[in-house]
Amino acid sequence: MKHTRIKDLLNATEYGQQVTVKGWVKTFRNNQFIAINDGSTLGNIQAVVDFANTNENLLKRITTGAALAVSGRLVESLGKGQRVEIKVESLEILGDSDPEKFPLQPKKHSLEFLREIAHLRFRTNTFNAVFKVRNALSFAIHQFFFERGFVYMHTPIITGSDAEGAGEMFKVTTLDFDGTPRTPDGAVDYSEDFFGKPTNLTVSGQLEGELAAMALGNIYTFGPTFRAENSNTTRHLAEFWMIEPEMAFYELEDNMDLAEELLKYVIRFALDHCPDEIEFLKSRLLEEEKSKPQNERSEMDLVAKLRFCLDNRFERLTYTEAIEILRQSKPNQKKQFKYPITGWGTDLQSEHERYLVEKHFKKPVILTDYPADIKSFYMRLNEPDDQGRLTVAAMDILFPGIGELVGGSQREERYDKLVERMHEMGVPTDEMDWFLDTRRFGTAPHSGFGVGFERLVLFVTGMTNIRDVIPFPRTPNNAEF
Amino acid sequence: MKHTRIKDLLNATEYGQQVTVKGWVKTFRNNQFIAINDGSTLGNIQAVVDFANTNENLLKRITTGAALAVSGRLVESLGKGQRVEIKVESLEILGDSDPEKFPLQPKKHSLEFLREIAHLRFRTNTFNAVFKVRNALSFAIHQFFFERGFVYMHTPIITGSDAEGAGEMFKVTTLDFDGTPRTPDGAVDYSEDFFGKPTNLTVSGQLEGELAAMALGNIYTFGPTFRAENSNTTRHLAEFWMIEPEMAFYELEDNMDLAEELLKYVIRFALDHCPDEIEFLKSRLLEEEKSKPQNERSEMDLVAKLRFCLDNRFERLTYTEAIEILRQSKPNQKKQFKYPITGWGTDLQSEHERYLVEKHFKKPVILTDYPADIKSFYMRLNEPDDQGRLTVAAMDILFPGIGELVGGSQREERYDKLVERMHEMGVPTDEMDWFLDTRRFGTAPHSGFGVGFERLVLFVTGMTNIRDVIPFPRTPNNAEF
Repeated sequence: MKHTRIKDLLNATEYGQQVTVKGWVKTFRNNQFIAINDGSTLGNIQAVVDFANTNENLLKRITTGAALAVSGRLVESLGKGQRVEIKVESLEILGDSDPEKFPLQPKKHSLEFLREIAHLRFRTNTFNAVFKVRNALSFAIHQFFFERGFVYMHTPIITGSDAEGAGEMFKVTTLDFDGTPRTPDGAVDYSEDFFGKPTNLTVSGQLEGELAAMALGNIYTFGPTFRAENSNTTRHLAEFWMIEPEMAFYELEDNMDLAEELLKYVIRFALDHCPDEIEFLKSRLLEEEKSKPQNERSEMDLVAKLRFCLDNRFERLTYTEAIEILRQSKPNQKKQFKYPITGWGTDLQSEHERYLVEKHFKKPVILTDYPADIKSFYMRLNEPDDQGRLTVAAMDILFPGIGELVGGSQREERYDKLVERMHEMGVPTDEMDWFLDTRRFGTAPHSGFGVGFERLVLFVTGMTNIRDVIPFPRTPNNAEF
Repeated sequence: MKHTRIKDLLNATEYGQQVTVKGWVKTFRNNQFIAINDGSTLGNIQAVVDFANTNENLLKRITTGAALAVSGRLVESLGKGQRVEIKVESLEILGDSDPEKFPLQPKKHSLEFLREIAHLRFRTNTFNAVFKVRNALSFAIHQFFFERGFVYMHTPIITGSDAEGAGEMFKVTTLDFDGTPRTPDGAVDYSEDFFGKPTNLTVSGQLEGELAAMALGNIYTFGPTFRAENSNTTRHLAEFWMIEPEMAFYELEDNMDLAEELLKYVIRFALDHCPDEIEFLKSRLLEEEKSKPQNERSEMDLVAKLRFCLDNRFERLTYTEAIEILRQSKPNQKKQFKYPITGWGTDLQSEHERYLVEKHFKKPVILTDYPADIKSFYMRLNEPDDQGRLTVAAMDILFPGIGELVGGSQREERYDKLVERMHEMGVPTDEMDWFLDTRRFGTAPHSGFGVGFERLVLFVTGMTNIRDVIPFPRTPNNAEF
């Protein structure tokens, strides 16, 4: 017997039809009303059992978490809370769930507890909603780029290049720690390793993406990236997904326009395609914030915050302008910043970014033209400013509650300037000869940026710990499942 | 000045409009006709230079591979081979390309040579076409599943579990080979490693996918997977992308239906969205096959082969039926198989699969119900057949020229049978307790399969070496770029 998805049934209007559903028991009340969920939607369908004529042993097996198949007629519901229900004619237990042992009881569990049983947390409403939104955002990203003729590039995960310098890397090897092959002078003999040389997990697909963009025009990556950094925060993962578009003939302004358009497109897509999920997550967040003091609660609810993002142009200003705002800000004057703003040239801390976004502008902010010294070698050098200070054509997008969501730049396309910067910053030019070839043969202005996908999901779901928006988080001392 | 994509210009009908294009020189003839490509399409736009009134030094810099911006009027072309061209009014060299040094000359290069310069091969027509088709297939996969309410799951790349047993794994570590931390008994002290235990690169997201499917209903993965196997063939990569859908309440038949529907959907999508690219690849293949003896050439051209796949139902038969066909086949009778088919129970070799697909049925074939001994522990055990032989509810889809494109099964959902199989096959049950929980709490029939993405791209592009359908292939002793 073919079964129907509960999502479709809840919208069905053809009363009296014979249907079969398969799913898991959420609750079972009065030996009569089963709430069944099959994952297709947050909503449950109510199945009404004729308990007087049902075997008592069977009834006992209808426990939270049990899988079952029920068949019967779809009828208009007389009870409150649902439009339709199933009048059960046959019921089969597909898989039992011992209520003494099943860890997910029909009550509220803490997110911390659910992280411990990440293999079961998909069965909760919260994680159903989170992963549906994550799915919608993923698809929206692909659709955005496909519609615009961008080519999706699967840049390599295992890399022999460690030049990007974006952070600590994981080693990938087939060598053994016991009896490691050695060269005559005692060094590890990587010629015996799988790839014949040391390899790592990628920290970014950008450099390879640039190669493709300088031929195909517009490309993007969307894949896993890695940092072996010992950061145990609510915003860092050792394994996370990044979207990295790279566009030939784009300058910094075009780059910002594209990033803003992308973010608005995917947020709108999520609102359009996951209204129930986002509504649920909005309530969840309101509930969570009740335990906080008034001044720590969000000024807007989740939906208002997302709509606000769509309706307002992101504020664009230079690093230099931002420093001036911060220098004159109340918290700086009152010495409330942990890192006081004294002058030009240092990197912004999270407290400064939050002040700009959440207090001063109260909307997403794009900061541009950072001091050259604190940014990567591949960013395009601007002309010195009137005080002779050197900046690069970088842009970071800061989001309320999230901080840096996007980091990008126009790339340094001028061979001589690029090599000079690489020397200054200690990036080996010989290992990067392939990268330099893009500047040797038909170089051209180009730009790109990276979006931290989990941070985007955090923003759209209103969750507060990045471990709760990826199926199986990898963090220091944690690679479970 | 905003530039227009060449793809859009080639379709433009508004003659006389002022346009700017930016791209790379493909050829420059008679000091007059520049063929410019910007990657947006295989087609070039012709820009006509008024050479009598153009600086001679500038003309000399219009070399193959140079990047330039030209502005002028879009006019109807008088020459053959193009409908429109640009009458150049201004021309700027964005980046030179020294013809003495640029490795890509306007002539035919071997695929082997292009593999050595994988960072530049995107600039050739062949690789432009291959990566456009790859892009269309990727998007089609996401769209297929999104339309059907499947949830895209990013299963972990770094895994602490090595139980799937699909092959040799790469170690992921931050420990050093020098001064490796040791426990008192001399073993490597993995508690000092980043994750506090040994970790590897995933060989499959299936087990984690099952966890999600048993809550969300229908899910799929699309991510990189890894094999540290020393296979230097035209069909194996150490790093490749896989699509792994997993569906609650699906039995083997549903599983096959979905796989066939998916493959047909994405092939049709590629034909619809990349007609020029596939036409180009068809010609390329015909050209390549000219050097082969007649009997090794394809019976159908690329487009005919793809259409044939769409128009015919994949042949479905059991392993047992296949063995009988093979046993009685001419090559077996004539002892032409390297591995003669003598009886039931051994795995099929590539020569057998090719015979079935390319000679006997001449279309894609789905083989089902393989002997239990040669398949994985998680596949569902069938009832013994009339001769008492044990099979599992597996299905492999074999494609002409490719061999195994899809491998899947109904999963063993019965706790006791699964544990028994794990013991028999030496899979540690204690490390897999999280996996067994799906069978403890509300287990249900479910199924899934894996598609090797690069093999699919091989099939649709007609390329013959898997290294030519992924941007930067990783194979033994090769992790360049």
